Amino acid sequence: MDSATLFDKVAIVGPGLVGGSMGLGLKRRGLAGSVIGIGRRRESLDAALALGAVDTATLDAREGVKDADLIVLATPISAIEGLMGQIADAVQAEAILTDVASTKARVIEVVSSALSRRPDVAYIPTHPMAGSEKGGVQAADPDLFVGSVCIITPLTDTYPETKAVVTRMWRALGARVASMGPQAHDRAVAAVSHMPHLAAAALMAAVDQSAMALCGKGLLDTTRVASGSPDMWLDICDSNRQDIHRSLVAYIEVLKAMADALRDGSLGPVRDVLEQAKSKRDRLLEARRDLLRRPGD
Amino acid sequence: MDSATLFDKVAIVGPGLVGGSMGLGLKRRGLAGSVIGIGRRRESLDAALALGAVDTATLDAREGVKDADLIVLATPISAIEGLMGQIADAVQAEAILTDVASTKARVIEVVSSALSRRPDVAYIPTHPMAGSEKGGVQAADPDLFVGSVCIITPLTDTYPETKAVVTRMWRALGARVASMGPQAHDRAVAAVSHMPHLAAAALMAAVDQSAMALCGKGLLDTTRVASGSPDMWLDICDSNRQDIHRSLVAYIEVLKAMADALRDGSLGPVRDVLEQAKSKRDRLLEARRDLLRRPGD
Repeated sequence: MDSATLFDKVAIVGPGLVGGSMGLGLKRRGLAGSVIGIGRRRESLDAALALGAVDTATLDAREGVKDADLIVLATPISAIEGLMGQIADAVQAEAILTDVASTKARVIEVVSSALSRRPDVAYIPTHPMAGSEKGGVQAADPDLFVGSVCIITPLTDTYPETKAVVTRMWRALGARVASMGPQAHDRAVAAVSHMPHLAAAALMAAVDQSAMALCGKGLLDTTRVASGSPDMWLDICDSNRQDIHRSLVAYIEVLKAMADALRDGSLGPVRDVLEQAKSKRDRLLEARRDLLRRPGD
Repeated sequence: MDSATLFDKVAIVGPGLVGGSMGLGLKRRGLAGSVIGIGRRRESLDAALALGAVDTATLDAREGVKDADLIVLATPISAIEGLMGQIADAVQAEAILTDVASTKARVIEVVSSALSRRPDVAYIPTHPMAGSEKGGVQAADPDLFVGSVCIITPLTDTYPETKAVVTRMWRALGARVASMGPQAHDRAVAAVSHMPHLAAAALMAAVDQSAMALCGKGLLDTTRVASGSPDMWLDICDSNRQDIHRSLVAYIEVLKAMADALRDGSLGPVRDVLEQAKSKRDRLLEARRDLLRRPGD
């Protein structure tokens, strides 16, 4: 193994945007001896092979995972349960299994349950917060994770060594690694990612067709994420319903206060929101600049 | 005059982002013999001079407009009434006066009223739909309008020649020119610009402070416009209250349907919104690509 190599063989189940970017990134940086792609459609695997995101590929999940020392679940959330049913007893002893799903509590429940008779497999959930509204392996990028945050939600029985090697991998891929509990993760990500996605989609859906010709750069940016895969986002919504609902209700309250102010002609609440939004966003940009200047933690 | 020159002397009242970009763009393209900047603060005018957005500058609005053949009102909307009170009888006969405000019906009322005893001045309202969340002349760009849409809302008594020369100017600055009535403009722009701005600001305002550390590129793009000037946007909201209110109520309805679906666990309405949003946005991107490929109209 190369000195940088962390894994002999990595199996990526679902080499799409995130899985494919991991494959490219791991190979480019010499972090994996080899990468095998596992998928359900021959064409997707052929595309992953052609792009160099994986070295080999198979439609047979059991066969694909059997000699991997890292298995990455990068499928849509709704496919994880069925997949774990297939592979749980095929994974080799001492392997690390990880997922990259955007919600954690529900996914952890499903994976942990499937692994209940495999205490010799180390499961560690992660959520790389990087993506693009362009899905599929065609959009994969070895540097997708550079400058992004990857959240690890270790389980109570996660070995420190497992956490350490997965943390090293994400750092080597360019991400900053944060650690938090699954519930805290799901609530925070509902607030900053899942609910805002629905807000952007609703905005696009609400625009009257007759006004579309006047859409400018502002609206295109505001709704950029709404070009993402409806299926993927429906999965996310379904697996994090309560937290997204809570965030959405809070958002609607802010909007209603502005609507009432516009109706009544006393714009104080509109001014409050505009000023609060600008100062929060300006601070956020500043904080991100600081973060990118600091050495890794 | 250069063959491209459309105006001998252009007076830009409020050379900030839009006014300053017009100054730079007009000068760069030889469209104006000279450009004078009119402002209320010496420092802003000095910055406009230093950047070359204007050739000369004055704090005296009456003096500044008196020999201009084009006067551009590029101040915040709330300043227009007071300004017109100062300059209405100082503008020279046969001059063209235009504004670049984001709302039209209310601004037209104010300007037309101030010009009621100046039938010899040709007023033509425009709305260049280009901007940036970064305000001020420091962000001015001679190519700000390239690829953008400029809406002209001619009045019933606008001379065809006036409309023609202002249309030529905007095309020369790189914009596509569309013509519509002021009410239709205000309603459409409320839907695609004003309400979405409030939606983005509310999103930023609603994010729990504790979750801010996880904000990613998605949320930054979705809320980009919320870094714009609160004062400017409050003016816009105030001058287009009814149309923005109508759009906001429609938006809230879509969000409420999704919130109810999340609460009840039957995600059909969420799927509908996600799919509608993606197909509308993808069509919008396609339409814009077509538009940019077509010759000017």
